[in-house]
Amino acid sequence: MTAHEDGAALVARYVAAFEAGDADAAAALFAEDAVIEDPVGSPPICGIDAIRAFYRAAMATGAKLSLQGPVRVCTDRVVFPFAVSLDWQGARQVIDVIDVFRLAPDGRIAEMRAFFGPANMRTVQ
Amino acid sequence: MTAHEDGAALVARYVAAFEAGDADAAAALFAEDAVIEDPVGSPPICGIDAIRAFYRAAMATGAKLSLQGPVRVCTDRVVFPFAVSLDWQGARQVIDVIDVFRLAPDGRIAEMRAFFGPANMRTVQ
Repeated sequence: MTAHEDGAALVARYVAAFEAGDADAAAALFAEDAVIEDPVGSPPICGIDAIRAFYRAAMATGAKLSLQGPVRVCTDRVVFPFAVSLDWQGARQVIDVIDVFRLAPDGRIAEMRAFFGPANMRTVQ
Repeated sequence: MTAHEDGAALVARYVAAFEAGDADAAAALFAEDAVIEDPVGSPPICGIDAIRAFYRAAMATGAKLSLQGPVRVCTDRVVFPFAVSLDWQGARQVIDVIDVFRLAPDGRIAEMRAFFGPANMRTVQ
């Protein structure tokens, strides 16, 4: 597999984990000492146990991801635009996000940074 | 203006500079000591003179940008997916890119990092 195919497959597994509501499957894509910053500027979530808890909480909202274009793979970075829809404060919300994964040498995610701001969030019902 | 409106306006000026083939207008969006890494992993282009030369060369290929979705604004970062089309080696090429701008306090671009890889490039004629 090329780096691009590996990166695209990783993103497909990440999206599928949300589709299945499987936090363990999402966490399994990360290195033990990985760090999440979601959104960028918020306190980092460090280590696989905290990451698993983060995905459990995210999936409890019924969060589903839909890609908005091709995955970009560049050196050890996998970057992709997507929308996440979730139930929040009694309404369905959609947030436009761009994630940057930095990969460890073994291909697992060492760092995930999510870029979005208040203007990227909208209520759809 | 909100941070989002500022970021979206900055990207609109960047796209318009390409549309006009105006390298000076593109370079004017950057701080004097800004750094470009395009694509990420290639040698950095440092300082406004080198940046202006970079955009002159890019625009000499007839490069035009088209946004592929909403601009994400997050802290001091402005992140956006787009395609660039350009003439290269005798054919029209399209490259799917995600740019990350880091802004200086005055709103100019302090750092630009472009994410794409070989699999994000395609020939369209």
